[in-house]
Formats: sequence, structure tokens, C-alpha cells
Amino acid sequence: MEKIICKAENMFRTENPKIDLSTTPNVSTRKRTLTFKNPPNIVGSMSVVGQKEGLGPLKDYFDIIYTDDKIREKTFEKAETIMLKKAIDGAIKKSNIAIDDVECMIGGDLLNQITSSQYVAREFNVPFLGVYSACSTMTESLILGSIFIDGGYFNNTVCSTCSHFATAERQFRYPLEYGCQRPPYAQWTVTGAGSMVLSSTANADGIKITKATIGKVIDFGTSDLNNMGAAMAPAACDTLHTLFLETNTSPNDYDLIVTGDLGKLGSDILRDLISENGYSLGNNYHDCGCLIYDYRQKCYQGGSGAGCSATVVSSFVLERMRRGELKKVAYLATGALMSSQSCYQGETIPCISHAVVIER
Amino acid sequence: MEKIICKAENMFRTENPKIDLSTTPNVSTRKRTLTFKNPPNIVGSMSVVGQKEGLGPLKDYFDIIYTDDKIREKTFEKAETIMLKKAIDGAIKKSNIAIDDVECMIGGDLLNQITSSQYVAREFNVPFLGVYSACSTMTESLILGSIFIDGGYFNNTVCSTCSHFATAERQFRYPLEYGCQRPPYAQWTVTGAGSMVLSSTANADGIKITKATIGKVIDFGTSDLNNMGAAMAPAACDTLHTLFLETNTSPNDYDLIVTGDLGKLGSDILRDLISENGYSLGNNYHDCGCLIYDYRQKCYQGGSGAGCSATVVSSFVLERMRRGELKKVAYLATGALMSSQSCYQGETIPCISHAVVIER
Repeated sequence: MEKIICKAENMFRTENPKIDLSTTPNVSTRKRTLTFKNPPNIVGSMSVVGQKEGLGPLKDYFDIIYTDDKIREKTFEKAETIMLKKAIDGAIKKSNIAIDDVECMIGGDLLNQITSSQYVAREFNVPFLGVYSACSTMTESLILGSIFIDGGYFNNTVCSTCSHFATAERQFRYPLEYGCQRPPYAQWTVTGAGSMVLSSTANADGIKITKATIGKVIDFGTSDLNNMGAAMAPAACDTLHTLFLETNTSPNDYDLIVTGDLGKLGSDILRDLISENGYSLGNNYHDCGCLIYDYRQKCYQGGSGAGCSATVVSSFVLERMRRGELKKVAYLATGALMSSQSCYQGETIPCISHAVVIER
Repeated sequence: MEKIICKAENMFRTENPKIDLSTTPNVSTRKRTLTFKNPPNIVGSMSVVGQKEGLGPLKDYFDIIYTDDKIREKTFEKAETIMLKKAIDGAIKKSNIAIDDVECMIGGDLLNQITSSQYVAREFNVPFLGVYSACSTMTESLILGSIFIDGGYFNNTVCSTCSHFATAERQFRYPLEYGCQRPPYAQWTVTGAGSMVLSSTANADGIKITKATIGKVIDFGTSDLNNMGAAMAPAACDTLHTLFLETNTSPNDYDLIVTGDLGKLGSDILRDLISENGYSLGNNYHDCGCLIYDYRQKCYQGGSGAGCSATVVSSFVLERMRRGELKKVAYLATGALMSSQSCYQGETIPCISHAVVIER
């Protein structure tokens, strides 16, 4: 270790400066599930997707389907920005809240420096908090938005995120033009944006966020940039197990438990992992990555990306709640916090999963 | 515009799908300054810096100075991670809070996918919320940490960030090995990490975060990746002006107004911009980027990077508050939300500034 010119040197003298790579993803005794006393209401939601998603099983639920993933823009990045703006605009309009009454926007996306969210935020004259949590961005945003409203800091917040197949492939794997083959355990990044408006004032929908569990960063040593589901399943298991324990619930207490984008392989791993903890996930467990595409669409393990669970929950799940078909939903978005650079440098992929409980 | 297969088509029929690039960074009537009823206490802070910072005017204030910016690691990225871990470890130790009593960690950094923060978070078995706000990450983290404590959600949170000259140059401009020349208006990314522990329980220091102003994304059309100060000054002006207006204060009410990393040019622009709004910044205004290096260190306009204001405030500013030399400080970190890819695609650089008021 280098010489430390340091007033506090003795604090560290016995420490090994090497980072310990082992992780212990156990459930801590420290409580990390929040129960909201003034649960925020989801008063508006909007989903905007691309062509492939618009041909999938949920096509009737999405608000806007673009038949051209580039929306005639010069770059896919611009198209992603436009989708996000449409989603936010639409969610605000559907909520019947004036844009001047939106007090805070919270969001992020998969692009480096969360550029899509920043470029959209500059279009709105609204305070903005940028978050990064890969594909669990939507639930992190919802947790923060809920705290702002439950705590009386704001009356209306907007939570949103997006992803785009072409921009994500270029950034995390290879540009599409290379025509690289994809392994059978790969997932397909969803092209789409989802947005929800949270308010202290309820509307006729009567949908509320009642609880939230903040995730921990968990790394089981996966380093394959294509195998996201396997990497994320342990983080989802940790958060789901924590939610069950801290709220004294079990899978049967929920009409739907929905994970973000574990895909088929990852969902199976989650079922196995959670069963080791004594819980059995039945027919009320689904994964947004598995719901959004038909297997004939050649998307291998299913969808992924921040836009995956954001669009599915903003449309399909909330719509079924409005119809009264679902009363209590646990929504766990899952994020693989991967960076192509650190993977090239031999690092593994840390993952996280934040959860919210939505009730009607 | 492409055909929209859409239930909500009529909502958008009259809209132009092109994003409007104009911004109007005026101060809105919507209040965005929060006043904390149970102000969180800053009970511990730690600063870790590299060699160049350790030769600067603030060398006596930093807790750890590494004489090798790579800390004998294989990559600069690993070194950055170690600095951040040291800062968090040290802040927690100095606060006399057990790691098991830390209920939430909030942080981010400049690297794509905030990898340094994620890799450190996996070392701690603590819930983690990742944020991205470029060089204003520290104040965004402090705002969220303060809300968690003020609202009674948690008792202890840790807020932290870091940056590294070598990793930032590689990612945003050119790898150091290219030996590129830097223009005279460039700033020097600080190698360092800063961390603060917020608690609901006060200690002898008696330092509290009493107010916070959430920033807006503001873009004045700068597109030069080297000219960060000029890009960020309008965002700093907007937030500072808002803070003055909404708390009914003026520059003289603060012992110190300190911006994150505008550098010399950016600070001058801020002085000009705020004077147009009728406020005059006197000798109590400083910029962390100007404080951290001596002009003989050839850092051009001064320091920048998320670690710049984080290390300066964690050490120099808080130490002077503990000594009673400063009683009321407005701390505005400033972030240029730039992405090298979007700049290559012809985009300009949006910026943001979040502020907190620290009192003793």
C-alpha cells in the first residue's frame, strides 16, 4: 500500500486496502421496508413502446406504439428521448394535473450519464433528481417519489424511465450494424418508456403505493454481459425475501408478484432461490420480461431494460388494477449494474432490486 | 412523424414530435426549497484525495492523501473505488455509528453506470440508492439523505461521491496516454472521494442541514466538453437565485456561499449572472474548484469532478464550521450532465445545481 500522508492514518493501519470481493446477500436485521402513512396515489400512467413490443401479447395495453424505432430521427438516442417525453407528457395529461403543479421529476435510464432523462428534463421547467439503478430505475424512482409525497414535501411527482434496444446494444454490447449473434440466454432490451404520476390527492382509480423495500447491491460473480437474468435473480430474491419477512406476508398475500426483467432463466432461478428460503412462488408470479414478448418473436429469454417493467406496469398491471382484477401487487424491478468497461477489466456484475407494493 | 398505433393518438395530434431546444431558466413560482423541521446532523465526514490535491492549498485539511493515484492497483478505476471505500469507512468510523446502524447509503459518481459507487456498495450490507447528477451528486445525495432523516424514515444515512482525473479523462475526453493538449479554459478533474454521515441524533459538532433547493436541468447551448464552468454557471445562478428568493435571504446572510466546481471562468460568469438578478456576491463567495489547487499547479481554471466539492466541503468547510469560523454555509454543487456520445451527435450540455444550507 502506498504511503498515506494522513492525519487519520492509524484508523486504517491494520486494514487491507484490497477490496474484498465476497458478498453475503443475507437478509439483515436492519429494517429496510418502509410503510407509508399517507400512501401516494398513482393518478396517471403512460406507456410508449416500439414496433417489436407493439407486436407482442400486451399490444392492446400500450398507449403509443411507434412502428419505426427511430421515429424518423437522426439517431436512436433522439428517438429514445422522444419516447420518454411522450410518456411523461401523457402521464401528466392523463392525471389531469397541470404541469405547473408537478413539483419534482425523478428518473433515469440506461444510457451513460442518463442522457435521455436529462435531455427530457431540460424540456420541463421542473426540479429534477436523476437516479441510476439500471433496470430497477422505475422502482427506485417510485420509492423516492413516494417518500416525497408521504413525507409532505411535495404534492405531485413524476417518476419515469426508458430504454431502447439499439442504444443499449451499442453501449453495452455491440452496435447493431456488426450483426453479432446472440446467445440463447440473452434478453432483448425493450424499446419503450413508462411514466407514472404520484399525487397526494386520490382519484377514481384508487391505486396507492403502500410499501417500499430498498435493495442492496448483490454480486454472485456473474460476468457475462449477455446473461442478465442469472445475475439479477439473487438480488430479486434478497429483496423479495426481505419484503415477505418485514411485512409478515407470503406469496399468497399478493394477487401478483411481478419482477422487472429476469427473463425465463432468471425467473426460474428466482423460484429456486426463494424456495430455499421456504417460500413457493405460484401462478401469481410473473416477470415483465416474459410477459412483453411472444416466444415466436425470437427474443430468447424475454425482455429486459429499464423500459421493460416500466411499460408493462404502467400499462398492463395498472390497467388490470383499475378494472379490479388485481388488488395487491408486489413490483420488484431488477437491475444489473453492469458496465462494459469494468467487465473488460475483469469485474463481475453487481445487481440490485428495489420493490414497491401497489394496492387498490 | 411515424404512424402511431395508439389509443391516445388524439392527445398528441397537434404536437410537434421534435424536441424544442430552447430553455427558459427562470425562477418559477413553484416552491422548490425544502425547510427541514427535524434537520439532520452531519456527524461524520471524510475526505480522501490523490497526489495533486495533496500538494494544493487545502492539503492540511484532507484526511488521507495518496501519493500514487493508482494506489498500486491494476486500473485507475479500481483506485477510485478504493478511495471511495476509504471515505465511507472513515466517515462512519468518525461518526461513532456502527455500520449496522447505517440504514441507507446514497451516492453516485462520474463513471458510466456509476460503477465506483456500485462496487463499493456491494462491499457494505446496506440498502443503496444510486443517483446520477454529475458533479452535483454530493448535494443530490445530501438532499435525499436529509429527507430520509427529516421525514423519520431512517436514523442514519451515508452520502458520498468520488471522481478520478484519469478515469474521467478517459471516459469524457481522451485517455491520458494520448497526451492531448488542454485548452486554457479546461478544468482538472479532482482525484478524490468525500463522504458524510447524516444522523437524527446530534453530536458535539452541532452541524445541521437546514434547507435544500432542488435544481432544474438548464442548457444554455454550450457544447465544448472542456468548457464546463461556462456551461454550469447558469444552472448555479438559477438555484442560488431560487434559494435567495424562497428563503428571503441575500448573499450577506451567509458566512460562505460555495459552488461546486465552476472554476475561475465559471465563477466569474456566476457573479455576472446573479448580479443581473440584483444580488452581489462578495468575498464570502468561493468555488471549490478554485480553492483546491494553487494556480502554479497548472490546473488551468481549477478543479472539477464530483469529488471536487465533496472533498473540499467534507474537509475544509466542515472543519471551519466545527471551529466556529463559519456558521451558515450555502453549498451548491454544480453538474454538467454531459455525455461524450451525445456531444459527438451534436447535442449541447445540460447542467444542474442542487443546493443545501448547512448551519451550526
